[in-house]
Formats: sequence, C-alpha cells, structure tokens
Amino acid sequence: MKSFGFPSRILVWRDLTEVQRRTVLERPVASKSEALSASVREILASVKRGGDRAVRELTLRHDRVDLAELQVGEDEVARAREKLSPQIVLDLEEAIRRVSLFHAAQLPRAIDLETSRGVRCERRFLPIERVGLYVPGGSAPLPSTVVMLGTPARIAGCAVRVLCTPPRPDGSVDPHILVAADLLGIRQIFKVGGAQAIAALAFGTETIPKVDKIYGPGNSWVTEAKLQAAQDPRGAACDLPAGPSEVMVIADARANPAFVAADLLSQAEHGADSQVILVSESRALLEQAGAEVERQLAGLSRREIAAKALENSAMILVPDLADARSICNEYAPEHLILQVDRARDFADGVRNAGSVFIGPWSPESVGDYASGTNHVLPTYGFARAYSGLTTESFLKSITVQELTAEGLAELGPVVMRLAAAEGLDAHANAVRVRVAGRGE
Amino acid sequence: MKSFGFPSRILVWRDLTEVQRRTVLERPVASKSEALSASVREILASVKRGGDRAVRELTLRHDRVDLAELQVGEDEVARAREKLSPQIVLDLEEAIRRVSLFHAAQLPRAIDLETSRGVRCERRFLPIERVGLYVPGGSAPLPSTVVMLGTPARIAGCAVRVLCTPPRPDGSVDPHILVAADLLGIRQIFKVGGAQAIAALAFGTETIPKVDKIYGPGNSWVTEAKLQAAQDPRGAACDLPAGPSEVMVIADARANPAFVAADLLSQAEHGADSQVILVSESRALLEQAGAEVERQLAGLSRREIAAKALENSAMILVPDLADARSICNEYAPEHLILQVDRARDFADGVRNAGSVFIGPWSPESVGDYASGTNHVLPTYGFARAYSGLTTESFLKSITVQELTAEGLAELGPVVMRLAAAEGLDAHANAVRVRVAGRGE
Repeated sequence: MKSFGFPSRILVWRDLTEVQRRTVLERPVASKSEALSASVREILASVKRGGDRAVRELTLRHDRVDLAELQVGEDEVARAREKLSPQIVLDLEEAIRRVSLFHAAQLPRAIDLETSRGVRCERRFLPIERVGLYVPGGSAPLPSTVVMLGTPARIAGCAVRVLCTPPRPDGSVDPHILVAADLLGIRQIFKVGGAQAIAALAFGTETIPKVDKIYGPGNSWVTEAKLQAAQDPRGAACDLPAGPSEVMVIADARANPAFVAADLLSQAEHGADSQVILVSESRALLEQAGAEVERQLAGLSRREIAAKALENSAMILVPDLADARSICNEYAPEHLILQVDRARDFADGVRNAGSVFIGPWSPESVGDYASGTNHVLPTYGFARAYSGLTTESFLKSITVQELTAEGLAELGPVVMRLAAAEGLDAHANAVRVRVAGRGE
Repeated sequence: MKSFGFPSRILVWRDLTEVQRRTVLERPVASKSEALSASVREILASVKRGGDRAVRELTLRHDRVDLAELQVGEDEVARAREKLSPQIVLDLEEAIRRVSLFHAAQLPRAIDLETSRGVRCERRFLPIERVGLYVPGGSAPLPSTVVMLGTPARIAGCAVRVLCTPPRPDGSVDPHILVAADLLGIRQIFKVGGAQAIAALAFGTETIPKVDKIYGPGNSWVTEAKLQAAQDPRGAACDLPAGPSEVMVIADARANPAFVAADLLSQAEHGADSQVILVSESRALLEQAGAEVERQLAGLSRREIAAKALENSAMILVPDLADARSICNEYAPEHLILQVDRARDFADGVRNAGSVFIGPWSPESVGDYASGTNHVLPTYGFARAYSGLTTESFLKSITVQELTAEGLAELGPVVMRLAAAEGLDAHANAVRVRVAGRGE
C-alpha cells in the first residue's frame, strides 16, 4: 500500500479512479530477494548434510549463542514454571481451555455410506503423525502462538509434536513459551530458530525428529525455508503462506472512536510492516479516530513500531457501508472488525476474511489470545482461498472403498465403458477379469 | 525407484540392508530443471502482459493450433452431445451421481458455540468464489477428471467455475470432456492447455476469468506453473503437489493372481513414469502374478507404456503381512489395494495412503471412475500430510466472534495479562479502553 500518512489524510473513495482504488488496497510487494532464497537453500542443504553440528554452527552464527544442548531439559521447564506467577499459568490454562473447546468442535465426521448396494465408500480421518511447531522469538516472544499451534495438534492426536523456538542471547527460552508447551504436553522442545529450525524439522537431525508438516509464523527466512521444504517431497508440508499481519476496521458514525483507535493500534504494534485500514461512511468518525490514535499512541511502549506501521495505513471515506463491504471482500483482510450498527447482519455479507470481530465488545486481541478461535490466519489476500489454522490442518483424510461381487457386477459395466471412452484398456480389464471370474 | 525388472526378480525384504530397503521405496527424483522453471516463468509473465493474444500465440507454438476463439461455444457443446452414444452419457451421469453422493456427505458443519457466557465463537464455511479446473489432454483425454473436479466444485457452490483443456490438433476438444462439463453446469470452457492455461486462470485475460484456486493434474509444465502461481499473492492457490501416479498392491497366498496382475497393469498404463509395487508373503503369489502380468500385457493397446512403467516396479517378498503394512505406511502410496484375508482389519492399521481398495472385488478403476470417491489423490509420499481432493478443497472457513459487554468484562483481564506477558501494550489497551468505557 502506498504511504498516505496517518491520520493526516482521508481518502475519499468516490473521488478515486479505478487505478487509485486498486493502489490503495494493494499490499506492499514482498521483496523476496534471490539472495535470501540462495542463503536459505544453503542452510537447508547444510542441515541435511551436517545434522546437529550444522544446526549448532548456524545458531552460533545467527543467534550468537553457543549451545551445548539443543533440547530443552525437564529441569529447565520446571524452573520456567517457578519463574511465572500462578496467575499467568491460570491464564494460559484458561486460553487453552477455550481454544480446546472451539477446536474440539472442529473434529470432522468420518463418512461411511453406500453409493449403491455393495459399493461402500468411506472417508477416514487420521492425525498427521509428526508435526513441527515453530514459535518465533524476536522482539515479542509469543506463548499465545504455542497455544494456537499446540492445542489443535493435541486435539487431532498428532503422535510426535516437536517445538522449535530461537534461544535468547543467554541461551535460554522465554519461560511463558516453555510453560505453555508443557501445559499442552509437548515434550520435545528445541532451542533452534530461523531457517535452520525449519531445515531440522523437515529433514531431521540426530536429536531433532523429522516431521511431516510444519506450522507457525516466522520472519522472511522462516517463510522461505518452509516454502522450500514443502516443495521437496522428502521435506515437510507447510501450513499457510505467510505475509505481514493486517486489520480492516469498518466503523459507522455511532462507533466509539477510542475503541476503533485502540484496535488499529493493537494491529500496528505487531510490526512496522503491519497493515491497518479504517473504512467509514462518517468523516467525523474518521477524524475522531485519527485524533484518538495520536492520543493513545503516546502511551504505548511499542509506539515507534506502531507509528511506522501507521505511515503505510489508510483511512477511507465511503459513500455507503455497502461500499465498505465490497472493499473488504476485494481486500480479504486477515482480521476484520465491524463496529457498525447491526454488525451481525453486516457480517453475513462478508465473503473474504480470516477472522471477523462483531460489534463494540469484540476487540481483535480477544481472538489473539483467548476467545477460542485460532490466531494463525491467512494474510495478504490469501483469505480468498485459504482458511486459518484449524483442527483439520493437523489431520489428513483417507478414502476407502469396498465392493461386494454383486456391487461390482452392477457398477462394473459403467466403469468399463468409461475406461473404454478414455482409451484405458487395462482399467476396463481390471473389472473384466473379476466379473468374468465371478464365482469361479 | 531403481530398476529391478518386472517380473523377473523378486526382492526378498529380509535380505535387504536398511539402505537397500530405502532405495527400493524411493520415488524417482523429479528432475525439475532450471530451464523448465525459467520457461514457465516466462509464460506466466507473457500471459500477464499480453492476455488473450499471448495465450493464442503460445497455443500456436505449443499445441500447433491457431484458434480464432479460445472459448468453446454452446453449439460446440451441443454437437459434442450428438457425437456420444446415449449410453455413455448415462454412464457419465451415473458417475456424477455417485461422486455427488459421497462429496455431498463431506459438506462440513458450521460451528456456533459460546466458550463462556457472552463469548460467542463461530466457524462459517464459504465457497471459494472463483475456481479453475484443469483437465489435461495428451494421450488419454480424461472426462473422469472433469467429474472429479466439477462435482465437488458444484456441491461447494463455487460461483465461477472455469475449465481449461488443451485443444486437439484440429482445434476441437474431446466431446466426452465437453459433455461431462455440461452435465456439471460448467459454462466457461476454454481450449487452452499447459502453463499458459494456468497463467490465464491465475491472472485472468480479456476472456478467461481470473480465479482464486486452480485444481487438476497435468504434466511438468502445468505442475510448475501451478506452483509458481500459488507463490504469487496475486496469482491463485493450488490443490495438491503432483507427482507420477502409483499403486501398492498387498496380496496374500489366497489372492487371485489375475486380479492382482490386472490392478498392477491398470496403474502401469497411465504413463511410463507410473509406480507399481506388489508386496506379498507368498512367493508363489508373486510368481503367478508376474506370469499373469506378462500374459495380460500382450492384449493391451497401451502395452508399450505399461511395459515401460513395469521396468521401474518392484515385487517384494515379506516374511509377514505386518511387514507389508509397515512398508505401506513408510511408502504412503497414492492407491493401496488390499487383496488379503480379513482385508478390512488390515486396512484399520493403514495410516498413510491416498485411497484404499479393500478385498478382491474393489479394483482401483472403480475409484478412478465411479465408486464415489475422488481420484485426485496425493502421490509421491505426500499422503503422509495431504488428503486427496474433497469438498472442503473448494471451501474456506472464516471464524467469527462476538462478545457482549459482560463477556468481555469476564474474559478481558485474562487477555490483558497475557498481552502484558508478551509485551504487547496496545493489545491490552484495546480491552482496557472498552472495560473502562463500559456503560458510559
């Protein structure tokens, strides 16, 4: 998105040309450099070849930590527990309880039906056996991400759950991350971050188990490594394409400008590349929300990050809220907050969004932590074709069919004629030998 | 997989080293050349720039057809109908009926629950609005693929369904493909194949609509184009990673060697790169099935293709059927055929496979055409983490949450403390301004 300043200028949708409108809604082009791809490719190859030794060297180079042990020991988890207040442990448990409730409801039904007498078709769901959960470190360690990845993995019944997270400069891991993992029964935790963590999970090392699929957010190195690993049949699948986090708030004249501003800021503080868009039919609301943003910003510890994100943000004045909905469906925001009258009716017309927050009492942060929904969501317009993380993301389904001799006798001729129409003799023959041989 | 000849040599599993075992189960490395990637990248760029004109030029160059119209007209569909026997139209309808039954049962349930009083969380399913269905041409035109892609797309309710398939040398399209599409209500059919078809679907042209996700099998150009389009946020998502088709048959001493051989051959005739593996604890069965393969092969129209595929295939003698199951779960075959005693019990231990065929009366070809299950399945070991095509592949889910003031008052403190633990002030603040402002 082009920089228009925030909140200095309001974009009047009606006055924009088609091209200008498209420009407003365009995400910044992810500048994926050839150099990054090459470096990541090298890291993957090096971990594939060198295993733990390579991981340790890369950790020394990138995280400036020399680790004797990659794996977090039980004593370290126990010490982490002692460092936390009992209250925050209760809070993590409460978040896990709610996320569990919502994700258990997502467990899909198996299917077992006959499409005709003697032609039985089934769909069975099975956990993906080995899953890798990546939890970024960096400026804000995110135990909530442990909750969002670890809960559906546990509900799906994935047998091997491996967590990787980068070590802090002193070689430790944020205790909230360790406690959240422990509450979720995750026993294999490794102090490895970046592309080397993804490489270790995708291909395995002496101590880090190879997994079938890798989940979780990360920086551009992690994202590129997940992509490369997913393209290698001997690597591991990945959850979702990733991009900068984003929110669209749609507010009407009666919305509370302080609430609107707080929601814009909670998105903006994530990172300088966060996308924040406010759409309203009320110029007054836009102006008031803008003033509130300025006021609230001053009190935030991450105000410099937030201010940077706001530079790339937009306030859009639309003639009518129906236009706001069109803009939303075109933009397909990761988060959509609706602070409008009859917000639930409005939500019924939303076709493209990751997660929707209805009404004045539903800030995005409840979904980020503890309402029950998942916070790993499609960014960058991917909500047009992708869902956020679900319990099914940790399952696969297998189809099964079993025919009786009678079932095949009835269906067989259809199959033989269709196979003949495609010129596939042997397909027809696999039925013919059986129908001919029936009862022999 | 290394070439061992077929059926000249039986591999005795017990005598193989770990490395040899791994080699037997290894798929041929997909030789994705840099040249192919570059050519595909160029085709994508050229269609993005040149639209229909570029598509027409590429069709002339690659398919040697000069098309005045890319879109198939209604009259062409009507004429296709006249060319087919009434019987084959009935057969296509029967296949669609059964595939519809099984895929309608897959429609997922929406969720609407409270994780506590006043904290309402929902999951809503919506069709992916615009979908592109790719149906390959080549040596065997596959109307069955139209059925397998078009049926779940219709059941999911995708509003825009666009089908692309390469023109034949005379500029026409196989009439079975047109009739199958017509039966499924697909009105937008284009005579475009290869990477240019994927490019047109991903980015749109003057006449070919841009879609959100692309489905269907294809050659290495199509596969690479789908991959590149999926990595472009302005492109389109893709269904499944693709590789050569494959079957594993597990048979015991009482299996019918003619049935086993017919199943191996129906996979082998797909293409010279098809993978075929037979596993048994009975040397006699392996020998008899091998002899049957030779015998049946002679009568097949595609015997040269099948013979080539068989060269890369394997017959494995295991000490016990439990070993066969381990081999299967390690290999994760696209298709698994179980011709063993108590095959259903055996299937209960299968963890990694695309589609399973139980017992003597369930040849793979029933699943390829008309049992009801989908024939677009994970190949190349991807069954460890991926499912085959399902109705959900044409849907996305959106989460929705709505809190009451009371619900937020109760949950808010948990969220604020968790946000504080992550150092995310503005997240806490988005709750604080609301709880403070409650009732004002």
